[in-house]
Amino acid sequence: MQIAVMKVMRFAFNLTLALIVTSVASWSQEPTKRRYAIAIHGGAGIEPDKLNEEEKRAHEEALKRALFTGRDLLEKGSSAIDVVELTIRVLEDEPLFNAGRGAVFNNIGTHELDAAIADGKSRNGGAVAGVTTVKNPISLARLVMTNTNHVLLIGDGAEKFADEMKSQPKLERVPNSYFSTERRREEWNEAVAKEKQAKAGASNGKSTVGCVVLDAHGNLAAGTSTGGLTNKKWGRVGSVPILGAGTFADNETLAVSGTGIGEHFIRNSVGFHLHALMKYRSMSLDKAVEEMTDRILEPDTAGIIAIDSKGQIVMRCNTPGMSRASANSDGSVKVLLAR
Amino acid sequence: MQIAVMKVMRFAFNLTLALIVTSVASWSQEPTKRRYAIAIHGGAGIEPDKLNEEEKRAHEEALKRALFTGRDLLEKGSSAIDVVELTIRVLEDEPLFNAGRGAVFNNIGTHELDAAIADGKSRNGGAVAGVTTVKNPISLARLVMTNTNHVLLIGDGAEKFADEMKSQPKLERVPNSYFSTERRREEWNEAVAKEKQAKAGASNGKSTVGCVVLDAHGNLAAGTSTGGLTNKKWGRVGSVPILGAGTFADNETLAVSGTGIGEHFIRNSVGFHLHALMKYRSMSLDKAVEEMTDRILEPDTAGIIAIDSKGQIVMRCNTPGMSRASANSDGSVKVLLAR
Repeated sequence: MQIAVMKVMRFAFNLTLALIVTSVASWSQEPTKRRYAIAIHGGAGIEPDKLNEEEKRAHEEALKRALFTGRDLLEKGSSAIDVVELTIRVLEDEPLFNAGRGAVFNNIGTHELDAAIADGKSRNGGAVAGVTTVKNPISLARLVMTNTNHVLLIGDGAEKFADEMKSQPKLERVPNSYFSTERRREEWNEAVAKEKQAKAGASNGKSTVGCVVLDAHGNLAAGTSTGGLTNKKWGRVGSVPILGAGTFADNETLAVSGTGIGEHFIRNSVGFHLHALMKYRSMSLDKAVEEMTDRILEPDTAGIIAIDSKGQIVMRCNTPGMSRASANSDGSVKVLLAR
Repeated sequence: MQIAVMKVMRFAFNLTLALIVTSVASWSQEPTKRRYAIAIHGGAGIEPDKLNEEEKRAHEEALKRALFTGRDLLEKGSSAIDVVELTIRVLEDEPLFNAGRGAVFNNIGTHELDAAIADGKSRNGGAVAGVTTVKNPISLARLVMTNTNHVLLIGDGAEKFADEMKSQPKLERVPNSYFSTERRREEWNEAVAKEKQAKAGASNGKSTVGCVVLDAHGNLAAGTSTGGLTNKKWGRVGSVPILGAGTFADNETLAVSGTGIGEHFIRNSVGFHLHALMKYRSMSLDKAVEEMTDRILEPDTAGIIAIDSKGQIVMRCNTPGMSRASANSDGSVKVLLAR
């Protein structure tokens, strides 16, 4: 009888020990085991049919460089907001995309840049519009969020704010000509020639870069950056620096970055609208984005990348193409150009 | 028998005639018989306890002048969008309010003005930020809506657009000093002194003007105009020129104009948010506004005036006061300052 009791007690002791060891192990592993995911876009202005194989490959390689920068940071446990900023810096530095270096020319042959960043954890955000000498506008947008009580700074004032932040390591300044590339100058010349023919005004470019992230800590963030429309005039600003329109993040629902005709994004408060469809109509992320691109917005105006708190990624456009890529902690990697 | 038939036919003929006459009369009277309504605000920055009787009276009289301008236009059948523009022009011209003449000083002692207008029928809108020489920014915002493909123009570019619109009768230009008043200069001096003491930055002014209208044709419109924050710097822009945040209109739900700390309005996409609460959660206008001022937004940050498609008016704030007034086709007139 005593032996039987001893056996039962030893079994119970071993079972308890095993349970403790297992739960400690799973707890200590949790930060690396938790799901993370990232999606980026290089704009809905791309027309895959008009690109040759070499151009397509260059585009895809550029997307991958940015995507893997973000993914590797996430793997190391970086925060969503850090990953959004650092990934968009790579996209801004890449001349292929209309943001940072490679930004389009406005109607006087210079560059005016807009950017916004949104933090789904704090529900705070920052944005700049019409900056001209900040190498990475996304980093200035982040400083608006963290170092001021404001959310939007514009034009010369935003440049002055950058002057005051000059000790910040990520705030490199450049002459405006740094942003110029031959390809964008040719596009601008074509737009000017077209305007003279047809009095058309700014051409409807739909190029932008963006990034949405769920990090391993369960936080969402989003960012968007752009040079705006080729040959734009009058200080035109689209939806990129408008939190709730082109950029939005809330841990409760989604992080989203838009690309396309910014005016449509503003009129429909696209970012916040998706949040409302999920929160107030209980739609899933993919249903909400589909409702937006296929029914609410006009055809050929929009591309959307979005991610929800479970790491589900949706990348959808109603344009002929959107350059985009995604990766997650399961090892999945996607790089796509055509619709 | 023949006589009986004749009598029945004559009766039927007379009945038909009477019905036609009645319906033509009611149809021709419809435009003047249909309900209209208007609400305006002069900002949630007002602190009624700190005003003497004379100041209160001056404030109320200024509100009434603008209100009756709008009401009289509505009585004559003017469109909602016209009434919003013309009523806000009266508020902009009034030195008591922080919009147009009487706008606050920024940190370099000049004035930068923001305005937006939204048309609930077309769901289109227009806005300007950081303009410096346009006497009535609301009229420039309307020209952005009607004469461009854009919704937001900023700074020097918006001024250039105004140059191109110079033949427009409502687009008077003025030197920047036109907007200066002694009262605002004193406020600025106080803010500068406080900043030197406390390193506080821009003072949290919450002054703005706004107007929402339901016209006799069943259309809604909204507009907002402001000089922003006293002693503001870095090209700070609040929610006024952000359609979907400080200004929004959709015939299906509501027209709304906000006043308060603009950053909170942007982060919560207040205008579109109210639309979403009504459309996606079937809330009434008063429930939606109450949800916003009392639960979603932080205390002491916001005032909201809104109107729905039935002409119900809600004017509510979570600040100590909001100068506001309303009128409608039933003859009701309200003028209020305290919460």
